[in-house]
Amino acid sequence: MTSQPLHLLSDSLTAFLGPYLPPSPPSDRVFVTLTYAASLDSRIALGRGLRTQLSGPESKCMTHYLRAHHDAILVGVNTVLADNPGLNCRYRVAGKSPSEASPRPIIIDPTFRCKLSAGSKVMLAASSKEGKEPWILVSAEWHAAVSPSDLAHIQSIESTGARVIPVKGLQSDNRNESWAAILKLLKERSIRSLMVEGGAQVINDLLLAAVQDGDGTKVSPVDVIIITIAPVYLGKNGVEVSPASALDYLYDIKWEPFGRDVVMASFNRKARAVS
Amino acid sequence: MTSQPLHLLSDSLTAFLGPYLPPSPPSDRVFVTLTYAASLDSRIALGRGLRTQLSGPESKCMTHYLRAHHDAILVGVNTVLADNPGLNCRYRVAGKSPSEASPRPIIIDPTFRCKLSAGSKVMLAASSKEGKEPWILVSAEWHAAVSPSDLAHIQSIESTGARVIPVKGLQSDNRNESWAAILKLLKERSIRSLMVEGGAQVINDLLLAAVQDGDGTKVSPVDVIIITIAPVYLGKNGVEVSPASALDYLYDIKWEPFGRDVVMASFNRKARAVS
Ligand SMILES: NC(=O)c1ccc[n+]([C@@H]2O[C@H](COP(=O)([O-])OP(=O)(O)OC[C@H]3O[C@@H](n4cnc5c(N)ncnc54)[C@H](OP(=O)(O)O)[C@@H]3O)[C@@H](O)[C@H]2O)c1
Ligand SMILES: NC(=O)c1ccc[n+]([C@@H]2O[C@H](COP(=O)([O-])OP(=O)(O)OC[C@H]3O[C@@H](n4cnc5c(N)ncnc54)[C@H](OP(=O)(O)O)[C@@H]3O)[C@@H](O)[C@H]2O)c1
Repeated sequence: MTSQPLHLLSDSLTAFLGPYLPPSPPSDRVFVTLTYAASLDSRIALGRGLRTQLSGPESKCMTHYLRAHHDAILVGVNTVLADNPGLNCRYRVAGKSPSEASPRPIIIDPTFRCKLSAGSKVMLAASSKEGKEPWILVSAEWHAAVSPSDLAHIQSIESTGARVIPVKGLQSDNRNESWAAILKLLKERSIRSLMVEGGAQVINDLLLAAVQDGDGTKVSPVDVIIITIAPVYLGKNGVEVSPASALDYLYDIKWEPFGRDVVMASFNRKARAVS
Repeated sequence: MTSQPLHLLSDSLTAFLGPYLPPSPPSDRVFVTLTYAASLDSRIALGRGLRTQLSGPESKCMTHYLRAHHDAILVGVNTVLADNPGLNCRYRVAGKSPSEASPRPIIIDPTFRCKLSAGSKVMLAASSKEGKEPWILVSAEWHAAVSPSDLAHIQSIESTGARVIPVKGLQSDNRNESWAAILKLLKERSIRSLMVEGGAQVINDLLLAAVQDGDGTKVSPVDVIIITIAPVYLGKNGVEVSPASALDYLYDIKWEPFGRDVVMASFNRKARAVS
């Protein structure tokens, strides 16, 4: 595991991000930050399964700074299969070990396709104390009928501290239901701030997701959206971020150049107010 | 014709744009600026034929400032059919009348589908001295076999000062050939700077176009790319800018917030050097 710490962000860049960080002390619910890096044509990878380095060193550093400010980081299983990501925080935080500074990796993987092994980067980060052990969210239906070989696989990765967690409702065709189930589970497990990094399917779903608020009204689970745009085109065969329908709910929008990229930070008018 | 002049850009915004403007005095060839306004998901309209207001007042003003600095402004025929654009310059330039400050509208329309009439905005702008008369580029093949009714239509719009110009090679399936023909024609007619505003097909073609340089090498016809990004999503049914393949040729990239939008200005490493 390479563990090169990243450079520190300048004061002006941390000041730019400050208002968009999860509340401290944390609120009573899961504060969700949706964040990704895209090309000018809103592609996040050159093609399915092709790891693509988009952001420059400055915006990459920004991503790790954000990771340091969240309890957990979530990705869909295809991202794990395509990118073998470490999902840890390489931004050094005074008074915290790299593992303490790192968010809990959460992988949505209804039928346990992720094929994690001790050599996967997310597992290596944990075993070398540079990150936390991942939680893999599988569907309760799949888990109830687990095969002996999958069970052995689960046991082997759980022996390292990782967790494979059955979630009722995860495999629903209704994405809103599965997001409600995911957020409920995370709240029960004391996660109060979640950074969602991808991939495209997770982002496109979340941009339009609506979950039941305490009082029954429908709200968006996303509080803050932070996007890095790199000045390249990945072309029409790339993996695309574009929700199924139009939306215009961002407010308090700020743009800040980070090296040759730009970062947009914004709040979501459809989110539940932070209490 | 409404002719509300636009506010002036601040000194810092004109300083931002300065390095990207066409050379003055003009060079010996057509300097091409590709510019468009897109959503976060790289859509320029909600759907084919749906006029969509994307940019805010500040970046709209920037577009008119750019128009004042170009000899001509070019769009594809579908944009004329969808948007009925004025294609004039509403940014006031000291010592120039609105018509003098306005670029020459150029419409690429191989088979004369544009249906312009005296009531079209581009024609109204010209007749009210707030813009120039458009040139409509049709293919030489179409023009050679023009029907009596189309000929009457041509005569009626040409009587106002507009021009319908046959271009050999315009209808080629090879977009590079048609771009070479367009640029040759414009140069012959003393256009030294061209601003290309859309639509999606024109932009996607031009991003990847290669034309023969004087010494036979292939170069991109695009010198500068200026993009406005508005903080909304238009969704997957929108009209999309994304070239057929990836490209990473932008350099000297600068980002500047314009109201709630951001503007990116950049040069093209594949362009011919400006002499
Ligand atoms: N540039 C960036 O910032 C960035 C960041 C991350 C990823 N990426 C790229 O994104 C690509 C992967 O994106 P992708 O769209 O293919 O896949 P993805 O979003 O990473 O994963 C999608 C899969 O996760 C599961 N899933 C997601 N949401 C779910 C939900 N609400 N309920 C239940 N299951 C859910 C489903 O698994 P099942 O199919 O098993 O049901 C689904 O097929 C990769 O190429 C990667 O490089 C880029
Ligand atoms: N947001 C913005 O900045 C912005 C700016 C402009 C337009 N738009 C939007 O863009 C949409 C229209 O885009 P579009 O992609 O449908 O069409 P378009 O690019 O405006 O026009 C395409 C048509 O122009 C002709 N053409 C283009 N390039 C040519 C070439 N090199 N040689 C010969 N003919 C050529 C062809 O006509 P034939 O089919 O007759 O051969 C082609 O079908 C509209 O919805 C409009 O609102 C947005």
